[in-house]
Amino acid sequence: MSILIKQVRLNDKAVDVYIRGNQIRKIGACSDQTAETVLDGTDKAILPTFHNAHTHAAMAYMRSYADDLELHTWLNDHVWPLEARVTEEDVYNGARLACLEMIKSGATFFNDMYWFWHSTARAVEEMGLRAAISAVFIDFDDPQKAKEQMEQNQRLFEERGRYSDRIIFQIGPHAIYTVSEKSLRWAAEFAAEHGLMIHTHLAETEKEVADCVKKHGIRPVAYLDSIGFLGSNVTAAHCICLEPEEMELLAERGVKALHCPASNMKLCSGKFRFTEAQAAGLQVAVGTDGAASNNNLDMGEEIKLAALLEKHSTGNPTALPAETAWHAGTRAGAEMFGLNSGVITEGALADCMLVDLNNERLAPGHHLIADMVYSADSSCIDTVICDGNILMQDRKVDGEEEIIEKAHEYREKFGR
Amino acid sequence: MSILIKQVRLNDKAVDVYIRGNQIRKIGACSDQTAETVLDGTDKAILPTFHNAHTHAAMAYMRSYADDLELHTWLNDHVWPLEARVTEEDVYNGARLACLEMIKSGATFFNDMYWFWHSTARAVEEMGLRAAISAVFIDFDDPQKAKEQMEQNQRLFEERGRYSDRIIFQIGPHAIYTVSEKSLRWAAEFAAEHGLMIHTHLAETEKEVADCVKKHGIRPVAYLDSIGFLGSNVTAAHCICLEPEEMELLAERGVKALHCPASNMKLCSGKFRFTEAQAAGLQVAVGTDGAASNNNLDMGEEIKLAALLEKHSTGNPTALPAETAWHAGTRAGAEMFGLNSGVITEGALADCMLVDLNNERLAPGHHLIADMVYSADSSCIDTVICDGNILMQDRKVDGEEEIIEKAHEYREKFGR
Repeated sequence: MSILIKQVRLNDKAVDVYIRGNQIRKIGACSDQTAETVLDGTDKAILPTFHNAHTHAAMAYMRSYADDLELHTWLNDHVWPLEARVTEEDVYNGARLACLEMIKSGATFFNDMYWFWHSTARAVEEMGLRAAISAVFIDFDDPQKAKEQMEQNQRLFEERGRYSDRIIFQIGPHAIYTVSEKSLRWAAEFAAEHGLMIHTHLAETEKEVADCVKKHGIRPVAYLDSIGFLGSNVTAAHCICLEPEEMELLAERGVKALHCPASNMKLCSGKFRFTEAQAAGLQVAVGTDGAASNNNLDMGEEIKLAALLEKHSTGNPTALPAETAWHAGTRAGAEMFGLNSGVITEGALADCMLVDLNNERLAPGHHLIADMVYSADSSCIDTVICDGNILMQDRKVDGEEEIIEKAHEYREKFGR
Repeated sequence: MSILIKQVRLNDKAVDVYIRGNQIRKIGACSDQTAETVLDGTDKAILPTFHNAHTHAAMAYMRSYADDLELHTWLNDHVWPLEARVTEEDVYNGARLACLEMIKSGATFFNDMYWFWHSTARAVEEMGLRAAISAVFIDFDDPQKAKEQMEQNQRLFEERGRYSDRIIFQIGPHAIYTVSEKSLRWAAEFAAEHGLMIHTHLAETEKEVADCVKKHGIRPVAYLDSIGFLGSNVTAAHCICLEPEEMELLAERGVKALHCPASNMKLCSGKFRFTEAQAAGLQVAVGTDGAASNNNLDMGEEIKLAALLEKHSTGNPTALPAETAWHAGTRAGAEMFGLNSGVITEGALADCMLVDLNNERLAPGHHLIADMVYSADSSCIDTVICDGNILMQDRKVDGEEEIIEKAHEYREKFGR
C-alpha cells in the first residue's frame, strides 16, 4: 500500500507527502513517486492525529445514559447495574462505536481499560486504529478473584499474538482501592518481566487519598512506591490529588500522567495541575476518559478544555498555550508508548489527518495550531490515515452505517 | 414560502412539522398540507436553534490572531492596533464569516456589539439570521466623543427601517469604565423612550469593580442603579464579580445576565456563578463572546463548558444539568428579546434545526438533550431554518465559498 498526498500544507508550505507501508517515507517534491492512491492536498493541511491517552472505549454504548448525578448514585444505580448486564458482544459493538467516533474526530490511538479485552482488540483491529489495551484488573482483596485475574492476564498475554502490532497488550490494575497489594506487586513484576506497560488510575479523589492513609498510613504515591509499582512503564489517569513532592517522585520514577479535564469537571473530582506537573518534570498527555463521563471521545474538544481550565485555575492566561495543548493531545500520548507517531516527519508512522483549510472554523487562518486547539471541531477533519491505511476520506468511514445500527439496539436493550 | 418536514422526531415521537411564512403552523400529521419544500425528517430530530446571547460577530476575522497572552499585552499590542485598521467592509466580511459559522453550528440568533453597525446588519440580513445589534458606544468621558456617539445612535435608530424585522436595533454602551455617566444616562433614556434593548458589559473583572469604587465610591451595580440605568431591557455580559445582594438587585430590576464561560476562562476574568444567579432570580443566557477570545462561536461547545465549569466550581455534579444548559443556550436568549423562538411549538417562529440521529455522537441515543449538550458537535447538525427559510441543508450554506475566500484575504491583510 502506498499513498501520495500532493501539495498539502505542512508548516505553511505546500509539500508532497509519500507514504509506503506504514511509514511516511518522503516529504517534499514527490512527482516521481508512483503510488497506488493519490490524494489531492490542495486547501488541506496535514497534521498528526490525536492520541487519546485515557479512555474506556466500549463505554460509548453508555453515552448519555445517566448524567448530572452524585458520583455514588451514578455508579451504584446506573453504571454498575448496566455493566453487570453487558456481554462480550456488547463491548465489541461499544468499542466499534468508539473507534468510529475517534476516527471521525481525528484520533488514531487510544490507551484503554475495560472488560472483555478481546472485544476491544477485535474492534480496533478491524477499524484500523492503534490502541494499548488493558483488561480491567479488580480483585477487591479477594485472593480467588486475584488468582483468576492473574491467570486471565497471563492468558491474554499469550493470546496477544492473534492481532497485528497495532494492538499493544498491557496490564490494567484499576486503582489502589480496588486491587490488593499482592496483585499490584504481581502486575509490576509481570509487566517488568515481559516489557509491558501498566495502565492505572491514581489520586483521582480526596476519598482515595484519605482511605489510603487510613489503610496504609501513607498517601497513594508513597504506597505504590513502597511496593515497587512505580516505573517508566506506568501511565496513571487523573493524578489530581498530588502534593508537589508526589509529583516529583512520580517524575523521578518516570510515571506518565493522563489528564482528563472533561470527566474530572463533570464528576467534580477536582483538577490536575498541569503547569505544576510539567514543572516537576512529569510527562503529561490528555485523554477523554470514557463516554459515560464526558460524553464524547473528542480529543480536539479535550485539549481546548485542558487549556481553558488551566488558565482559569491558575489565573494565568499564558498557561498551557495552544502549542502545549496540541502536543499533549498528539505527540505526548505517542511518546509514552514508544510510538513514532504524533508527528509528521520522514520515517514516522503514517498516522495523520488532513484538515480542510476552507472550513469556516479555520478561517481566516492566522495560526493553524491555535485554530485546531481553540476553534476547530470534527467537521474540519476530512481524511484520517493510520498505519498507512486510509480510515476516513471525505468524512466517510467504511461500515459506519452498520455500527450505528448496532448502537441503536442499545437504546432498547439498556434503555429505561 | 412553506416547508413540510415529514416524520421528524420531536420529543421521541415522529411527527410532521408544517412551516408557512416565518412560523411553525402545525405539528402532527400534515399529509394534507401542500408545501413548496418537503424535507424528509427520517432519522432526524427537530430542535430549536441556539441563541447566542453575547458576541462581537465581526471579530471572526481576528480568530487565532493572538492567543495565550496577558490581557494588557493582548489588547494593547494585538487587538486594538488591528481594530484601528479595520474598515466597514472588513467588518461586513468578518460578520459574514461569523454568520456562516453560527449557521453551521446551529445558531440563528445573536446579541451583538461592534463597530460599523450597518456592516453587521447587512451581513445578518443577507445571511438570513436574526440579531440584536448594537454599535459600540465608547466616549472615554470625552464630551465631543459622547455627542458623536449619541448622534450616531440617533441616526442608526432612524436607519434601522432599511432592514427586515430580523434585525433588532439596540443601544450598546460598552461598559462603565469606557462610557461617561452622562452617556449612560442618555442611553437609558433613549432606550426607554423608544422601547429599545441595551447591551453592555458588567462586572467582568475585579479591576472594573475596584476602579468603580475608587471613582464613584460604590460598586458597579449600585452605580448603574443610582443613575437609573438598570431595567428589564438591559442585557449584561459576564456579571462575574457580583456579591449576592448585587445579583438580587439585578434580578429585581429585571436585568439579564449573559454568561460566556470560554472567554472568561481564556482571559482569566473569573467565573459567573450560574447556580447562585439563578437562585437569586436572574435570567441567564449563554453566549460565546467574540472569536478573538474563544476562538469560535459554537454554542453547543459553550453550553457544555457552562455545565462542566459550574459542576467543577461548585463541587456539585448535579449543578447546571443538561436541560438547564440547553435552555440557557436556546430559549433563554430568545426570551430576553421577546422572541417566540428557541422552542418548537405551533405558533413559534420557524427557527429550528434538524440533527442527524445517525451521527455517531448521538448514538446509542439514550437521551437527546444530554447528547446535544455533552456529546454533539456541529457535525451532527444537518439543516438550519430561520424565519421560515432554509439557511443550511446537508451542511451546505449558499455562498460559503466566497465568504471563506474573503476571509482568507485577512491572513494577508492583517497577518504578521
